Amino acid sequence: MGGLTVLHECLVTMPHEDFVYLGDGARLPYGPRPLDEIRRFSLEIAGYLEAQGVKLILVACNAATSAALPELQERIAVPVVGVITPEAHAAVQTTRNRQIGLMATEATVAAGRYADLVRTLDAGARLVPVACPRLVPLIEGDEPFGAETTQAVREYAQPLKDAGIDTVILGCTHYPLIRPIFQRVFGRDVALVFSAEETAREVAETLARKGIENDAVREGSYRFLTTGDTGRFRELGARFLQLPLEGVEHVEISELEAAAA
Amino acid sequence: MGGLTVLHECLVTMPHEDFVYLGDGARLPYGPRPLDEIRRFSLEIAGYLEAQGVKLILVACNAATSAALPELQERIAVPVVGVITPEAHAAVQTTRNRQIGLMATEATVAAGRYADLVRTLDAGARLVPVACPRLVPLIEGDEPFGAETTQAVREYAQPLKDAGIDTVILGCTHYPLIRPIFQRVFGRDVALVFSAEETAREVAETLARKGIENDAVREGSYRFLTTGDTGRFRELGARFLQLPLEGVEHVEISELEAAAA
Repeated sequence: MGGLTVLHECLVTMPHEDFVYLGDGARLPYGPRPLDEIRRFSLEIAGYLEAQGVKLILVACNAATSAALPELQERIAVPVVGVITPEAHAAVQTTRNRQIGLMATEATVAAGRYADLVRTLDAGARLVPVACPRLVPLIEGDEPFGAETTQAVREYAQPLKDAGIDTVILGCTHYPLIRPIFQRVFGRDVALVFSAEETAREVAETLARKGIENDAVREGSYRFLTTGDTGRFRELGARFLQLPLEGVEHVEISELEAAAA
Repeated sequence: MGGLTVLHECLVTMPHEDFVYLGDGARLPYGPRPLDEIRRFSLEIAGYLEAQGVKLILVACNAATSAALPELQERIAVPVVGVITPEAHAAVQTTRNRQIGLMATEATVAAGRYADLVRTLDAGARLVPVACPRLVPLIEGDEPFGAETTQAVREYAQPLKDAGIDTVILGCTHYPLIRPIFQRVFGRDVALVFSAEETAREVAETLARKGIENDAVREGSYRFLTTGDTGRFRELGARFLQLPLEGVEHVEISELEAAAA
């Protein structure tokens, strides 16, 4: 579901491109699965999408990017863009005092990829991570903008404020949905870096540099595939996409496995 | 209700300021009322707010701004900021080809204030207005992001595209809620100017120039007053505010009238 915020950003910044979105609803959540299993699923899905003739694959998930990005890039012929790198790059460019905060799920914090990337991009920058396990359930719940969410964000933000960070990576694709709450809690002097925006920008730049953009005057299309229940995808997905969500098709896991074989 | 998108923008860009929001739920909608009646209501409300000790009044409504801004500024001692002027100013600054579109309700288009202001600010710029009567009901309805909304936006946008505009004023406080739909329909080469953002910026600049800003490190508060039903205000308002909406108090029309007397 979270990947839909990345698609949202792609749809508004690249309205002339065509998108096909595949959600692995039947095997969610990826978070608690072993890394090699997530890697196998990701390779299946990427193989399936490549067989559909796509010109670029975007891995709009922190867990899949952490587990599988290098292998995907080795095995898939079209360009593969993940989350994480774009945000780390944007945060290093943005910070003035080189103190960067990270808010993300426990798995993302534990994987340590944001910290590695920040160090690679600027050996003098420091990343202060905070795992925020309560946020995804609150965002998927009935009152995403409720007082409980604000209270949770305030608590998670406090150690980052205490550490004097001037930039925060919101390293989870769910977080753009409660952007106003982050903005208010951190105030005007802290820069917020969201996966969705930075990754959409990376995709746009990649298409432009490779000269494989669509004609800018056309209006693009988008459609959805899910291994899970199409009704549930449509219902929860509308909140994340904030654009019409129609044309959801079911795809069998066996079709994905066949593509990888 | 639409004014809440302006408050939203104020809350995220000025988290250190305190806000009191008054919604005249009992006498909505203002749109079909005679101008002198809207003017009288606006003067009552502004008088009531001034008596509460506010340091600035923001008229977050196109109808009230059209009907009453000069009178409010004459009669009220604290600064009074309206919508319309900030967007017209931003649009004139933004356009490169001096062809500006306007999408707004029928009343706002009929009032002609955007056209007057654009002409005053740049006598060589042209404003192409389109009245969009279907949008507010769709945005307040059950599927604001549905295909019907996209279809309506596409139809209203067509004459603006045909006219070759490069900048569009979204001149209704409801429209920020469906921002992604406007972005997709107009594409990357058209600049969108929203009331909420431009008006919040005008308020921030006014406070700064007058030297009456709050200390930037504090966390501000906000509360709500309505002449209508507090439950209904809370329910529909949450969708517009996208921040916790608590502390809604009822205020009697007679209290407003007493303030104006």
